[in-house]
Amino acid sequence: MDIQETIKIMLKGVNEHTQISDIEEKLKKVSEENRPLRIKLGLDPSAPDIHLGHAVVLRKIKQLQDMGHEAIIIIGDFTGMIGDPTGKSKTRKQLTRQEVEENASTYKQQIFKILDESKTTLRYNSEWLSPLTFKEIIELSAKCTVARILERDDFKKRYEAGQPISVHEFFYPLMQAYDSVVLKADIELGGTDQTFNILMGRNIQRDYGQDPQITLFMPLLEGLDGVEKMSKSLGNYIGINEDANTMYEKIMKIQDEMIIRYYELCTDVHPDQITEIQRRLSSGENPKNVKMELAKEITRLYHSEELANKAEEHFKSAFQMQVAPEDVAEIVIEDANNVNELLDKILLSGKYASKGEIKRLFLQGAVKVDNEKIIDFRDLKLKNDSIIQIGKGNFYKIKMK
Amino acid sequence: MDIQETIKIMLKGVNEHTQISDIEEKLKKVSEENRPLRIKLGLDPSAPDIHLGHAVVLRKIKQLQDMGHEAIIIIGDFTGMIGDPTGKSKTRKQLTRQEVEENASTYKQQIFKILDESKTTLRYNSEWLSPLTFKEIIELSAKCTVARILERDDFKKRYEAGQPISVHEFFYPLMQAYDSVVLKADIELGGTDQTFNILMGRNIQRDYGQDPQITLFMPLLEGLDGVEKMSKSLGNYIGINEDANTMYEKIMKIQDEMIIRYYELCTDVHPDQITEIQRRLSSGENPKNVKMELAKEITRLYHSEELANKAEEHFKSAFQMQVAPEDVAEIVIEDANNVNELLDKILLSGKYASKGEIKRLFLQGAVKVDNEKIIDFRDLKLKNDSIIQIGKGNFYKIKMK
Repeated sequence: MDIQETIKIMLKGVNEHTQISDIEEKLKKVSEENRPLRIKLGLDPSAPDIHLGHAVVLRKIKQLQDMGHEAIIIIGDFTGMIGDPTGKSKTRKQLTRQEVEENASTYKQQIFKILDESKTTLRYNSEWLSPLTFKEIIELSAKCTVARILERDDFKKRYEAGQPISVHEFFYPLMQAYDSVVLKADIELGGTDQTFNILMGRNIQRDYGQDPQITLFMPLLEGLDGVEKMSKSLGNYIGINEDANTMYEKIMKIQDEMIIRYYELCTDVHPDQITEIQRRLSSGENPKNVKMELAKEITRLYHSEELANKAEEHFKSAFQMQVAPEDVAEIVIEDANNVNELLDKILLSGKYASKGEIKRLFLQGAVKVDNEKIIDFRDLKLKNDSIIQIGKGNFYKIKMK
Repeated sequence: MDIQETIKIMLKGVNEHTQISDIEEKLKKVSEENRPLRIKLGLDPSAPDIHLGHAVVLRKIKQLQDMGHEAIIIIGDFTGMIGDPTGKSKTRKQLTRQEVEENASTYKQQIFKILDESKTTLRYNSEWLSPLTFKEIIELSAKCTVARILERDDFKKRYEAGQPISVHEFFYPLMQAYDSVVLKADIELGGTDQTFNILMGRNIQRDYGQDPQITLFMPLLEGLDGVEKMSKSLGNYIGINEDANTMYEKIMKIQDEMIIRYYELCTDVHPDQITEIQRRLSSGENPKNVKMELAKEITRLYHSEELANKAEEHFKSAFQMQVAPEDVAEIVIEDANNVNELLDKILLSGKYASKGEIKRLFLQGAVKVDNEKIIDFRDLKLKNDSIIQIGKGNFYKIKMK
């Protein structure tokens, strides 16, 4: 595949990355060596319920796999005994061997809902970390300074606040970096919270005489509230194991502003197509239509075309969505800020005695705009392609002039 | 042996130590268990030429051995690969395995000039440190915080000055502490520069469920200049491998003010006897006499009674010391600050024509006071028992009134 096309897909939705010229060089190198990129992803087996937030990096890997590259997923069973202190304000409890194994097995069941199993190798980092001798550990840790590690944001904050950091926590970034050395990783992905650990991999690879890995940092996906990072504990998450109906419905709850972000981070839709969707939204298409497409696409990814279609049907009926007829009457609105203009034009249909009657119908809950009841007609926001339904059978479609 | 007598000898010359009540408790405990104290000393095999400064801790151990206790000397062959960064302003070069072994072997030859070999076990800490697994290392280092280690003076200074500290240097105090755990040490000795590392042993022993060791910190011995710490590189040292004559002569060069300190730190002389020597000096005895006793005692410790006597003889002849006759004429001086009084009383002997002649003899280099030539008679310091020799045969002994 063309290097520029690879880079376009590789960088879709990415927050920070190694400079393009280095990426090009790496791609040329593996192409000359006639081999795929070795893509590394480390998973901390302490949070086994994967949601769309966790899936962001996995989807990116899937896109790279679709272009022929290979993934190596590291189940951090050894590092999990320490627990990555990243972003934590205190030392984490060490997981037992049994907890690590149970979590890792749950993880495996989930990641192959996303990744191409034929292009994925699963490794446990205990394989190479556990047999390291003290001498080798000393050599590894001699390659990094205390000051460098204390630069890491969370360590720095804890150190300055006088909160305890155990010496063993310093091992975490070094171990993660050493994983890259052992695997000769060409590229490592992670959330932006992993910047420090992943860049450490580049340094340590260099120290061990290797060509340093490319790094791609994916943004942290906001949850259903559109503000906080998606997280199970905040309840604003969409789990990849949720059934098709629940998944579809949850996606329909995201804010309109998040549609493109979810397209970028939660689907494999080509960047060019996303540009087109962006264009549709900008030119006034009802976001609800686009969101339904998004919900169907994401549901399809984790279930099937069929279940995604069924979820859409279910959504429509569960929310008593009535579909406007093909030949719905269109009302052309000239001033988006003038709701009275709409009432005037509905009155022109001759079905209602007065604007007062139409206002009463609003107050009685008989009016839906894009399937949402509007009680006070002044709350109405005029949007292109909005469907206004009055009572059971009367539909109008707004057209902005 | 009586606990109070043990403590008296144990604390002779000691700079800092665990509080007396804890020492008493430990001594009672081992007495009840009917076993000797397990005394730990770690030696860094990077400086193999032992001098009296290094020997301070070894002598203390010898004194404890003489009371029936047992020493375990750790040759830090494993820790030596890191090199204790204590007091160093930068990361030390790692020693090779071969360098460590050569140094350790030189050490062994020297320490048994001091220690009782029958009550000494030699151990290499590679024995238990080298086979530690990564998991065990993680568990060990989880017991200490980064802040605690950065409190150590030299680390703190380097960190604050922005000088690099490698992560592996943090292992040093942890490893030294772990040595105490493995050996179940009852007591650890070290120089005051080892305070941090040795106290860490107490903490980590507690963490591993052991009764913490007693700690004894010996002062750093000043060298021949009486100011700087004894050190080979400064040239102010007395090596324990030096021949008897050299050793004796070097000791004769120390300042009078250092005599008691050398008695405390470089001999096994009982504290009560040192009190007596102190008394002799305070009551005006010529320090040279006492220093000669000290030189003979130290030379005897590292050589033999016979060689020590020979060294004394050699010193006397080499420095052309003439011994005053038994019936030397005594001159009683009333005013220590009045040198003229001495000249007047020498004139009374009738051997010289005038005070002018006596002054000329000074100027010609014919007058020695305690075997040192005095050229300008005004430089003369009047001390009790000083021997004044004029020409070959005329001796006078000063008696202060």
